[in-house]
Amino acid sequence: MNTIKVLQFGLGPIGVRSARLAAGRGNMELVAAVDIDPGKIGKDVGELDGGGNLGVAVTDDVARALVELKPDVALHTTSSRFDAVWPQLEALAGGGCSVVSSTEEMLFPRLKHADLCDEVDALAQEKGVVLLGTGVNPGFVMDTLALVMTAVCYEVEKVHVDRRVDAGTRRLPLQQKVGAGISVEEFAERKSRKAIGHVGLPESMALLAHGLNWPIDEMEEGLEPKVAPRDIRTEYLEVRKGRVAGIHNTGRVISGGRERITLDLQMYAGCEDPHDFVKLTSTPPIETRINTGVAGDLATAAMLVNMACRAVEVARINPGLRLMTDMTLPRLAG
Amino acid sequence: MNTIKVLQFGLGPIGVRSARLAAGRGNMELVAAVDIDPGKIGKDVGELDGGGNLGVAVTDDVARALVELKPDVALHTTSSRFDAVWPQLEALAGGGCSVVSSTEEMLFPRLKHADLCDEVDALAQEKGVVLLGTGVNPGFVMDTLALVMTAVCYEVEKVHVDRRVDAGTRRLPLQQKVGAGISVEEFAERKSRKAIGHVGLPESMALLAHGLNWPIDEMEEGLEPKVAPRDIRTEYLEVRKGRVAGIHNTGRVISGGRERITLDLQMYAGCEDPHDFVKLTSTPPIETRINTGVAGDLATAAMLVNMACRAVEVARINPGLRLMTDMTLPRLAG
Repeated sequence: MNTIKVLQFGLGPIGVRSARLAAGRGNMELVAAVDIDPGKIGKDVGELDGGGNLGVAVTDDVARALVELKPDVALHTTSSRFDAVWPQLEALAGGGCSVVSSTEEMLFPRLKHADLCDEVDALAQEKGVVLLGTGVNPGFVMDTLALVMTAVCYEVEKVHVDRRVDAGTRRLPLQQKVGAGISVEEFAERKSRKAIGHVGLPESMALLAHGLNWPIDEMEEGLEPKVAPRDIRTEYLEVRKGRVAGIHNTGRVISGGRERITLDLQMYAGCEDPHDFVKLTSTPPIETRINTGVAGDLATAAMLVNMACRAVEVARINPGLRLMTDMTLPRLAG
Repeated sequence: MNTIKVLQFGLGPIGVRSARLAAGRGNMELVAAVDIDPGKIGKDVGELDGGGNLGVAVTDDVARALVELKPDVALHTTSSRFDAVWPQLEALAGGGCSVVSSTEEMLFPRLKHADLCDEVDALAQEKGVVLLGTGVNPGFVMDTLALVMTAVCYEVEKVHVDRRVDAGTRRLPLQQKVGAGISVEEFAERKSRKAIGHVGLPESMALLAHGLNWPIDEMEEGLEPKVAPRDIRTEYLEVRKGRVAGIHNTGRVISGGRERITLDLQMYAGCEDPHDFVKLTSTPPIETRINTGVAGDLATAAMLVNMACRAVEVARINPGLRLMTDMTLPRLAG
């Protein structure tokens, strides 16, 4: 197998991790790293996490990187919205580079941006590249893994996935993102301007429904604060009893008049039994539990890098705007 | 999507189940059923399990069925050995029909029949069909599922899979197959002529190693009787204390001088905690447990039918002798 040339696009915490991981893989070479932050341009990527230089300087000139370095695939970690990242995807795909992106809406872009998808798909096919959205959630535990578990079923009446994350053991930005420590009123205010909550639950549900060939009659999403039942102290902050410990996001899909998909995501400080749990109401019935759950920060970078190998493979046989359901078997690809 | 035309090849218990399942799927049509047993030829497939006629009469004339009915895919359930089924595969592929087979060795045919594989692959590519071996074990719990779990990992040092099956709750032939009720001496005798034990552990290990790109230095397989610690009574038979309750099969792969894959399969009457368990020694560490395990009989037929949809899909973009790692995402395909 040829070495896969990788461009890292976006150098936030996840992007630096995926860049470093790609650089360390025997079958990959990190050839370029792109960010628009003037404070990062010109530095070695490895300076950004202090983990040792990687021999690649950050640039903001994507076009030049594409022409001069001819990357096979970009690891794309910039923003959650598909329409917002489309110009970036267009530049990458237009330059003949496949893209594996953590953009949450890109897990199932037709859900909210159907108008854009035909254009994106046509460009990707013309250029012989794959464009794929993935990650851990959305991208794995609440969608792809649940789909894989249905492979051994005669029939499936319902898919339910629980994910419980102890935000208290995660980095400070995540604790802040789920609102740990704020008041219930502040939570309501943030919710009203869509400034809190997990992004991607609708896309996970849409991927599940698509993969199982279930028409969606209705899709609902809910968000409530997870209120601290007692004082909780994390490494970084304290949550007083009665204040917000985190989020409780729910989703459900009605198909053919019945509730067939339910997702339940709780991310909060003080969660005592973190886990992922897939329950299929099916023949045979299937219950799968991942003890302690899949840790998001590390695993999202890993998923991007691992799926990059699949994207390069699928680009040769079935280029286009693709979904996790179109990929060859997801797995570690070292 | 067009209706997928299905030929059932082999009408043992699993084959009749997969035929019935395919006949009931909205996106499939059972068009033909093939067996060599004179006692079955001419009967409606549905007579074989008494579950109601399916409108398809059993025939032994494969060639005619292929020409007249033009099936897209065959569900193939005849024998465990790849070289033994090759003439059947050749007839099917030669007639332009993809094959999804429960032939255990076909999960990774290059392990024991590398010489044959180039020829098979060339024919499949020429005819634009996919030939795939799959099932529950081998095919899912001890290989494919474990691979999928590695997708969220930075690195994986070791893969371990436990499977515990309570043979006592399964049909009589399975209880007999694992030796429930025989003496330890009889077990040793059967083992010496390779007449007992699970078929497919080496293939599962080979698929894991292939999927993870781990060279195999050494592969070992072990088989011991699981001796009844007390009297055990099942619906069909009794196992006295000290006699054989079932099998304990183990496998391990040494790669790069280290033990990197271990499989532990126990199928016996009286197993009190049946389950499947995938443990990755990895970053992040991952432990996945399927409560009660995936029941083999139902699930094998389901896996064949579900993967038939994937085989038809992959035949259009990447025909050939293929592995589970080459398939688009395994899932229920109703």
